[in-house]
Amino acid sequence: MAEKLTLSVDAMGGDKAPDMVIEGLDQARRRLPDVRFLLFGDEARIRPLLDRFPAVKAVSEVRHTPDSVSNDEKPSVALRSGRESSMRLAINAVSEGEAAGVVSAGNTGALMAMAKFVLKTLPGIDRPAIATYFPTMRGESVMLDLGANVECDSDNLVQFAVMGETFARHVLRLEKPTVGILNVGQEELKGVQEVRDAATKLQLSNLPIRFYGFVEGDDICKGTVDVIVTDGFTGNIALKTAEGTALMFGSALRDALTGSLLGKIGALLARRSLERFKVRLDPRRYNGAMFLGLNGICVKSHGGTDAMGFANAIYVANELVANKLNDGIKEDYARLTIQSAEQAEQGGNDSDRAAAG
Amino acid sequence: MAEKLTLSVDAMGGDKAPDMVIEGLDQARRRLPDVRFLLFGDEARIRPLLDRFPAVKAVSEVRHTPDSVSNDEKPSVALRSGRESSMRLAINAVSEGEAAGVVSAGNTGALMAMAKFVLKTLPGIDRPAIATYFPTMRGESVMLDLGANVECDSDNLVQFAVMGETFARHVLRLEKPTVGILNVGQEELKGVQEVRDAATKLQLSNLPIRFYGFVEGDDICKGTVDVIVTDGFTGNIALKTAEGTALMFGSALRDALTGSLLGKIGALLARRSLERFKVRLDPRRYNGAMFLGLNGICVKSHGGTDAMGFANAIYVANELVANKLNDGIKEDYARLTIQSAEQAEQGGNDSDRAAAG
Repeated sequence: MAEKLTLSVDAMGGDKAPDMVIEGLDQARRRLPDVRFLLFGDEARIRPLLDRFPAVKAVSEVRHTPDSVSNDEKPSVALRSGRESSMRLAINAVSEGEAAGVVSAGNTGALMAMAKFVLKTLPGIDRPAIATYFPTMRGESVMLDLGANVECDSDNLVQFAVMGETFARHVLRLEKPTVGILNVGQEELKGVQEVRDAATKLQLSNLPIRFYGFVEGDDICKGTVDVIVTDGFTGNIALKTAEGTALMFGSALRDALTGSLLGKIGALLARRSLERFKVRLDPRRYNGAMFLGLNGICVKSHGGTDAMGFANAIYVANELVANKLNDGIKEDYARLTIQSAEQAEQGGNDSDRAAAG
Repeated sequence: MAEKLTLSVDAMGGDKAPDMVIEGLDQARRRLPDVRFLLFGDEARIRPLLDRFPAVKAVSEVRHTPDSVSNDEKPSVALRSGRESSMRLAINAVSEGEAAGVVSAGNTGALMAMAKFVLKTLPGIDRPAIATYFPTMRGESVMLDLGANVECDSDNLVQFAVMGETFARHVLRLEKPTVGILNVGQEELKGVQEVRDAATKLQLSNLPIRFYGFVEGDDICKGTVDVIVTDGFTGNIALKTAEGTALMFGSALRDALTGSLLGKIGALLARRSLERFKVRLDPRRYNGAMFLGLNGICVKSHGGTDAMGFANAIYVANELVANKLNDGIKEDYARLTIQSAEQAEQGGNDSDRAAAG
């Protein structure tokens, strides 16, 4: 853990970039004194900021890029015309071995398209997924996909299960994480075909995965399982629904407490307790969506985050690199491939079981 | 509004039935003194309860049914073998004109299957949808479908938009409700094909609907639109995710406030404010999922609810009947059909526009 590690940073991505980015790095380097930064962006805007944060300057190298990717740019356009953008060159730094991972708060679709194009997917993974971890009533869970693939087949979902489980072991440090597939409860034939097929495959596989079965929307925050697998359409909507609900809750609580004198006095006395409550569920602490399944570490910070949120995205990237997440996924996948070959040698037994499942 | 209205009630549906049901009716009749109840279920269990609640007894008629539908019964099995169940006979009472609507806290899938079979869908509606309304940061919104149809085509979604908009006008009493389709934000070609097609159809239609366009998960609780349209898979997961998040929030707040002496004192002083906050977001106040699109009013209460929640489901059924929701949907649909015919007479113009959309 003491070796120097370099992260490349898209300094121009995010609503308040580059100011928020450099300030975020200043917060991050306090917890990660051994990390170096390779900053891509408009030098004329970055230099004065580094002068304000000399401690960041001391561990950073700036690479001037004339272009940056805007938030409303289509991924395909960004991929074609953004070859000299801060985002693209920051990703290139990973593929060229200059950096161990890349962090950007820019356009998600463009970042995914570029990262897929430049870094390629890991062996055995057809499509990368966006993942995040978040607080639950039991601890922390990870959910994927959150929007990279609006439609998924059952093989994609099985691959997400493998990646998510590896993440939970290597980064959340859970010994035997449980995996569930997000589904609806009350239907006769539960859920859509892909989801049912993925469950059958996970049940029948010899993967060293503790497959719990189906979970429902309320299980996400209950922490029923450690890894929640879903397609990018449902996952994106579930995550944003949870964010919106938390926002409404916070706002209603504030309204209630500021609406009367006793409420105000009570809130003042309970200030520390309320602060602890706020910190525990602070979305900035969970900022940093990971692109899993790529041949390189890529972390997407929320575009509207502040310095504290961006610093957290840096921590996440550092964790993924330090815990050798991708080596873990590769190993798990190699094991899976060997098992599949062994199963094939055993003849038709497994397909019979699958048909009966 | 002063005329006597009869609701049929499945007295055996729900985890704590029939006790919870009769107690719920006792709460409901205080606000709805002019409603009569037709109770279906085990007479030997219902009679003693009515003796405890003479005010309910005074406005109720009991019809003994030997059978009831269990919670884990498959809808298709319930449909075949549950012909003498409390649920089925309560629905029959609506189709036979004895009751203006039915309320059950029983098995959702079975209730939907039976209601569809007995009541049939309204003209122009291919599939009924499950809808609920809930508190938002702006007021109240309605969302559908919540699980009746795990897969929907674009026509289903357009029909849900019509039904939801009618509901918002007739029951939530909004003058010109806005309608949005739930989607993901960051994709190049946003969302799945059905969702995009439904949006195109709503944009091009001459329906008197204020179509907002796409909304995302966090817009649900923000109250960005009054009506949220989605397929049953996504809607079910979004609703349950919101419920789970609210549960976690409440639990974390309680933990924080009871974790220290000052927190406890503060909470005690702010008791009324916290109570107001709790009441505002109390899920029991929003209990009662409506089955929209059927030729009759059918409301599903949460199976695990208490008397207050069940009373709310009764209020909801009463609102739907009193506001003549189904007449509204029929009228809107008739208008839609006339418009479609007129558009067809105008020749190919509209299909050209649709193709270009």
